Amino acid sequence: MVADRPHEFDLIARYFAPLATDPGCLALTDDAAALTPSPGTDLVLTKDMLAAGVHFFPGDPPDSIAAKALRVNLSDLAAKGARPRAYLLGLALQDDWTEDWLAAFSAGLAADQARFGLSLYGGDTIRSGAGLVVSVTAIGEVPAGRTVRRNGARPGDRIFVTGTIGDAALGLRLRLDPGLADRLGLAAQEREHLLRRYLWPEPRTALAAAILDHASASIDVSDGLAADAGHVCRESRVDGVIDVDLVPFSPAARGVRAQDPGLGLACLTGGDDYEILACVPPQACDGFVAAAADAGVAVSCIGEVAEGGGRLTFTQGGRPVQVSDGGGFRHF
Amino acid sequence: MVADRPHEFDLIARYFAPLATDPGCLALTDDAAALTPSPGTDLVLTKDMLAAGVHFFPGDPPDSIAAKALRVNLSDLAAKGARPRAYLLGLALQDDWTEDWLAAFSAGLAADQARFGLSLYGGDTIRSGAGLVVSVTAIGEVPAGRTVRRNGARPGDRIFVTGTIGDAALGLRLRLDPGLADRLGLAAQEREHLLRRYLWPEPRTALAAAILDHASASIDVSDGLAADAGHVCRESRVDGVIDVDLVPFSPAARGVRAQDPGLGLACLTGGDDYEILACVPPQACDGFVAAAADAGVAVSCIGEVAEGGGRLTFTQGGRPVQVSDGGGFRHF
Repeated sequence: MVADRPHEFDLIARYFAPLATDPGCLALTDDAAALTPSPGTDLVLTKDMLAAGVHFFPGDPPDSIAAKALRVNLSDLAAKGARPRAYLLGLALQDDWTEDWLAAFSAGLAADQARFGLSLYGGDTIRSGAGLVVSVTAIGEVPAGRTVRRNGARPGDRIFVTGTIGDAALGLRLRLDPGLADRLGLAAQEREHLLRRYLWPEPRTALAAAILDHASASIDVSDGLAADAGHVCRESRVDGVIDVDLVPFSPAARGVRAQDPGLGLACLTGGDDYEILACVPPQACDGFVAAAADAGVAVSCIGEVAEGGGRLTFTQGGRPVQVSDGGGFRHF
Repeated sequence: MVADRPHEFDLIARYFAPLATDPGCLALTDDAAALTPSPGTDLVLTKDMLAAGVHFFPGDPPDSIAAKALRVNLSDLAAKGARPRAYLLGLALQDDWTEDWLAAFSAGLAADQARFGLSLYGGDTIRSGAGLVVSVTAIGEVPAGRTVRRNGARPGDRIFVTGTIGDAALGLRLRLDPGLADRLGLAAQEREHLLRRYLWPEPRTALAAAILDHASASIDVSDGLAADAGHVCRESRVDGVIDVDLVPFSPAARGVRAQDPGLGLACLTGGDDYEILACVPPQACDGFVAAAADAGVAVSCIGEVAEGGGRLTFTQGGRPVQVSDGGGFRHF
């Protein structure tokens, strides 16, 4: 009980009801909301939970925490070819929360849900004994039966990734080691780029339709490129080969890779990219690349799928290179 | 990172994949699950989050924590007339979790989802800096457009509640004050009854069809009878009158009420009943009572709805009595 704080009902009315923009939500005044699925669609369901000190820093801007909690879920939806529709929010607030914090947090949600086209459909706000925990369930729609899976890759498919790889992992290293940017001789702009990529992931929602139309398999790169490409190979029972020289890196990441091979490796194994890896049959590649260009999302072909038992290999200059994925980045 | 613990993927395979019984879940091996809505239905969405030390005691049996996390959501679905279909689970584990704990927790989920007829559709397991947090999103189905709301009560409706009121609030008091049961002279059986009602809420899923067919408004009693009946009156813009002598109390609660008027009041204002309050038009009462009997759920008529502006009054012996609801039980 926190007697001198606004009641949960007041918080809902003030900060969350304005986010429940669909009529079925009844402005969050009921026990539950009703969602009418679009005819002929399946609902794609995903849930990611973020905790202070594990997935974000407690002092991060509240709107960035809100955006990250929503966007990591939107990234999963995009990888499945789904259009965002609804989300539910669980918020465990630490005892020292302030209304200013909550106002900024809900403003972050408002901006993102307007941008990505979904509505809040419910949630729960509780008191947490310790740090902040944010739990988001996101719901998207795909034409019935057409959810794009991890397990559909076939020999001959080309492997594409969106955007650039490794920036967020480097951004996290910079946060954990404040002297690192100077030791690496990073320009202010490069440092800002990497930090921003960690703080503000960019879900590839705009690419969902292209994935739905052209990809045989797709996954969002959240555990690191090596781990997530490995998931696709294992689940599809195919081998994959990725050419490190084709992996897209930002100028900042290229600079770090040139300076420090260990950090260069972290680009391939670190988490939090929230890019998409898609396998596309050869005959569909032109269509996929054109659709991605129309959507304004950069895509790079980084490798190929072959027959096999689920093994992923990285090559460089035609020779295999060792990229231990360490089982993927552990949020746990 | 917890290097000496099983990886999250192993935990999912061992404890959670067996709970993903529907084919659309792909045994939780993908980023997201696909749910095909039954034709002609709306999906009813609800989310409740529970934290150790707030909603349950950290040392409670793991299967009871699992059951409570699921059941408080099922209670919301039942109140809306919805049939349970799917749930997603967010689990923030404290650092000292054990596999035995997790095995018992997932066994609790398995038993409940079999009993109530739903499947796990996804989730996330993370490390929590402090206590355990469990976040459940539950999804039910109702015929399109027929979700039963809080705001549909009309003058002349009768007010019904299921089961008995106040047991869980008294059970919580017994937990917080170990000497209380003796001071009240409670028999061992009565004490056990009250403690059990707090630990193992009983969602009225079996009553959902009767509510759908007969109720004009419905809410689950989670914040206390006074607060939740108050919500219905306010949202429906009607007045309500509840006769305290008609409110169903268990023998244990009746004993406490006779001994201690203060605790007697707590029965009407305390939370965690997870019973259902339904408003039923006079001509539908016989059908509602018969359907409830068929469903094996006890219902009691405790009052009536009248024209008005949203005020709830309790009476006893024909005279108004003061029952301050204190804004409902605060989980926050």
